[in-house]
Amino acid sequence: MGSDRLIYLPLGGAAEVGMNCYVYGYGPADQERLIAVDLGVTFPDMDTTPGVDLIVPDITWLAERADRIDGIFITHGHEDHIGALGLLYGRLNAPVYARAFTAHLGRMKMADRGHQPTDVSTAQPWPETVEAGAFKVGFLPVSHSIPESSALVIDTPVGRIVHTGDFKLDETPIVGEPFDRDLWASVAKSGVRALVCDSTNVFSPNPGRSESSVGAEIERLISSANGMVATTTFASNIARLKTLAEAGKRAGRSVVLLGRAMRRMVTAGIETGVLTDFPKVVSPEDAQDIPRENLLLLTTGSQGERRAATAQISRGKFLGFQMKEGDTFLFSSKTIPGNERSVIRIVNNFSELGVDVVDDSDGHYHVSGHANRPDLEAVHKLISPSMVIPMHGEHRHLREHSKLADAGGFTSVVAPNGAMVDLTGNAPKIAEYIETGRDYLDGDVKVGALDGVVRDRIRMALNGLVSASVILDEDDELLGEPWCETTGLAEIGSSGAPVVEILEHDLGQAIGRAGRKTLTDDAALEDIARKAIRKSAMSELGKKPEVSFIISRLA
Amino acid sequence: MGSDRLIYLPLGGAAEVGMNCYVYGYGPADQERLIAVDLGVTFPDMDTTPGVDLIVPDITWLAERADRIDGIFITHGHEDHIGALGLLYGRLNAPVYARAFTAHLGRMKMADRGHQPTDVSTAQPWPETVEAGAFKVGFLPVSHSIPESSALVIDTPVGRIVHTGDFKLDETPIVGEPFDRDLWASVAKSGVRALVCDSTNVFSPNPGRSESSVGAEIERLISSANGMVATTTFASNIARLKTLAEAGKRAGRSVVLLGRAMRRMVTAGIETGVLTDFPKVVSPEDAQDIPRENLLLLTTGSQGERRAATAQISRGKFLGFQMKEGDTFLFSSKTIPGNERSVIRIVNNFSELGVDVVDDSDGHYHVSGHANRPDLEAVHKLISPSMVIPMHGEHRHLREHSKLADAGGFTSVVAPNGAMVDLTGNAPKIAEYIETGRDYLDGDVKVGALDGVVRDRIRMALNGLVSASVILDEDDELLGEPWCETTGLAEIGSSGAPVVEILEHDLGQAIGRAGRKTLTDDAALEDIARKAIRKSAMSELGKKPEVSFIISRLA
Repeated sequence: MGSDRLIYLPLGGAAEVGMNCYVYGYGPADQERLIAVDLGVTFPDMDTTPGVDLIVPDITWLAERADRIDGIFITHGHEDHIGALGLLYGRLNAPVYARAFTAHLGRMKMADRGHQPTDVSTAQPWPETVEAGAFKVGFLPVSHSIPESSALVIDTPVGRIVHTGDFKLDETPIVGEPFDRDLWASVAKSGVRALVCDSTNVFSPNPGRSESSVGAEIERLISSANGMVATTTFASNIARLKTLAEAGKRAGRSVVLLGRAMRRMVTAGIETGVLTDFPKVVSPEDAQDIPRENLLLLTTGSQGERRAATAQISRGKFLGFQMKEGDTFLFSSKTIPGNERSVIRIVNNFSELGVDVVDDSDGHYHVSGHANRPDLEAVHKLISPSMVIPMHGEHRHLREHSKLADAGGFTSVVAPNGAMVDLTGNAPKIAEYIETGRDYLDGDVKVGALDGVVRDRIRMALNGLVSASVILDEDDELLGEPWCETTGLAEIGSSGAPVVEILEHDLGQAIGRAGRKTLTDDAALEDIARKAIRKSAMSELGKKPEVSFIISRLA
Repeated sequence: MGSDRLIYLPLGGAAEVGMNCYVYGYGPADQERLIAVDLGVTFPDMDTTPGVDLIVPDITWLAERADRIDGIFITHGHEDHIGALGLLYGRLNAPVYARAFTAHLGRMKMADRGHQPTDVSTAQPWPETVEAGAFKVGFLPVSHSIPESSALVIDTPVGRIVHTGDFKLDETPIVGEPFDRDLWASVAKSGVRALVCDSTNVFSPNPGRSESSVGAEIERLISSANGMVATTTFASNIARLKTLAEAGKRAGRSVVLLGRAMRRMVTAGIETGVLTDFPKVVSPEDAQDIPRENLLLLTTGSQGERRAATAQISRGKFLGFQMKEGDTFLFSSKTIPGNERSVIRIVNNFSELGVDVVDDSDGHYHVSGHANRPDLEAVHKLISPSMVIPMHGEHRHLREHSKLADAGGFTSVVAPNGAMVDLTGNAPKIAEYIETGRDYLDGDVKVGALDGVVRDRIRMALNGLVSASVILDEDDELLGEPWCETTGLAEIGSSGAPVVEILEHDLGQAIGRAGRKTLTDDAALEDIARKAIRKSAMSELGKKPEVSFIISRLA
């Protein structure tokens, strides 16, 4: 066993937020048996990924070694941990393990993409374990903002790894298991080689608060409201849904779930037994007969998603509901960086309707699902590992978390995506860098982030586009005039004439000046045409558009 | 004078942040003599305005009444108040007034767009006034985050208006005049009909802090830093530049200005006399001979602008400077909502370089330039107007500010862009709604927000584009095969064949099925082609692209 090594390799989620995917391996170098932890997605944005449907980690490295994978373990049911399961499963084809609630969601992901839901096995919590090649993996319950989150206890031939997943130290989480300090201590007792640890909230200086701390404030708000009350949070935060619904019930309000994810998550919670005693809900139709001051709507779309219930109701009528002066809307959520504009747009919509918006700026109506800085320090100490490997965070988070671990006397390393870390020795050592990146699901097709497809779309968005077409006859002479059509450009430019006419004229002139050799050479002709069009547009519009050029030769 | 009225009309800046433009008028209805206050811009974003260079208010209403404008008054030199001066001046052609520093910037804006810089007159501060038709306008010094900000004291035949511009209550602003409570009280003494008031910080519950409060913390940070120190703030915040530079000087560091706006603003400050005793700066070239621990760089781009000095230096070498482990970067600034991702990207770049980033999350290194909620209440009381008209804020800010004024016993109204308010009576009354909106400067051309140009660009970014070309012969028969070219789409779809080949085949089939009548009708043919292409792409790629279709007829 002298040459066997234990490796850790983040393929997504390290030095970025989202699309978590981590690999552990044990065995001779380049022949390790492997397990994967989480297969998450990231969501696109207009700035960098317009038109893309989902972003998943580039798992080429892992897929090329699919025959060595002994298991895929999903820590919890958030999209950035489970969202790519159905999309990527076909390239990995290894048994999938998750706890009941997560497995329930995972089976839906599998079915959505044409896989067998039964390929997802329900795992029981620690101390039960799953044998997976060189590893024995246990699901250690921990609190987070979705039920049944688990850390993984990964026993290897050279010692134990604790992979925290996303977690917080909540001893009263409303739904799901509380953080059990004694249980964690018992896991750590025999010694832990590496703690691979959530870094999300390393910049939050105060100890995290319990989910149970928001109930009283929420109840106060809802019971003092007069008109209709609507509220949003992540649908997967089932504890919060319960808190909100119970506050509504106690205030004499009927609860209505608006948005598919709301209904789906509550159903999943009830079916898997993690959610009990959820107040009775009424359908949107039945709610029409209930006075508005007796309604509490729970709406999807806390991040300002345009098509979710929150955005729709802010724009006017939605499924028969219409908010107005005297009503209250509560964001029981935090706005994720990058979503500010979308959320603010909704707040302003509500303002125009006269609806009072309450958000979490005072810290009363939301708590984070991640361990804050002092909590991380506490876990470092509790687990007392030989090394701390920060994961789940941008580069700044990993670096800060590594500094924090160093300050606490632990060895650590900043391992961004692609950094394969050898955990076999006394200190983590970066063994090599694997090429990693992102793949886009674009419509039904996988597109590489560097394929140029999205780059071209961004260029069209910035510069507009000219489509041009010329016909050359049997003698390679221009037949008729060139045709141009513009998309995303002004129709009239500085000369006051229609831009397409100027473009067609200038393009015709440029082709007229071209020599015979150019006219017989598609590439050379396209080059001349492109330059002529861009120059002409620059002079008319002050912009250099993209050009799509079609040559038809009458042979 | 019985039928004369006093009107207020925001054309930009009310129910949005940016592109401020307000109109006051006095006279018989629809014959009022007018003045304009501020001509600002808004900056585009990829989500809603890709490729646009600048956004300006649609001033059609005002331009159609240019013969009635007696003056354009610019309160201060921020882009959202002065940025459109050069762009819109030609349609208004009225005398422009501003105080010295603002006028200096205004003349540059005029020259940039081919107007006479001398059309901007330098106004002296209150109690001097400018006569402008029915109005007498005085520039009342007030503190903000740029030198020589002014409120306007607008005397009208039916009483005085105080238009605050952007302001805060800073009695020790480092550069520029302090807020002078007695002076403001004296202006209010004879009674004020309307206070038209900045609403930006109405949600900030604590009294605003003085610019002078950040000096000590900044000095502590810079003097305790070891390596190179670089720092960014808005270049127009000359007081902050001075504070930063002086802290650098006292720490034995030479100051380097990086970025055109930095040099331009410091020069403007010195030339107009508002900035004195600014520490000596060294050029980027000379700085190369100075040890890195003796350097302080002041860089442009606090909002993460891709091409500004901050972003460039975070990506590697810039003008010979390269930051590394042990260096410090200070954001002496606040991130404006919507810019979070760009700023975070830079912070992560620095993290990869090993640079320690310090920002204002603790509130130590930045103060806002706007009056907070208690400051607004204090100004309401100090001016004690007959009515409060909230301006400069999104709808939620105006609404909240209006509530605040109501709670203080003042009459108020929420007047978003286009709401013409009659101020003649005892309470503000919305007289009519004017059509307002945004114009885009796109390259060199003005484009209306609703022209569809930008909408088409967004669609291309989301859906990709297919350019297609067909040739019809003298008998309206398809000559050869259709040609397709794609931009921003994957090359291979679900069938495994090149997408263009499938598109061309399906398009050919659709045209082959078309009747003679369709083939002779460009619009009908295009309609068939577009549908065929989109259907074909949907089946191959799961996307419905935009289509640019060119028909060539051999006549």
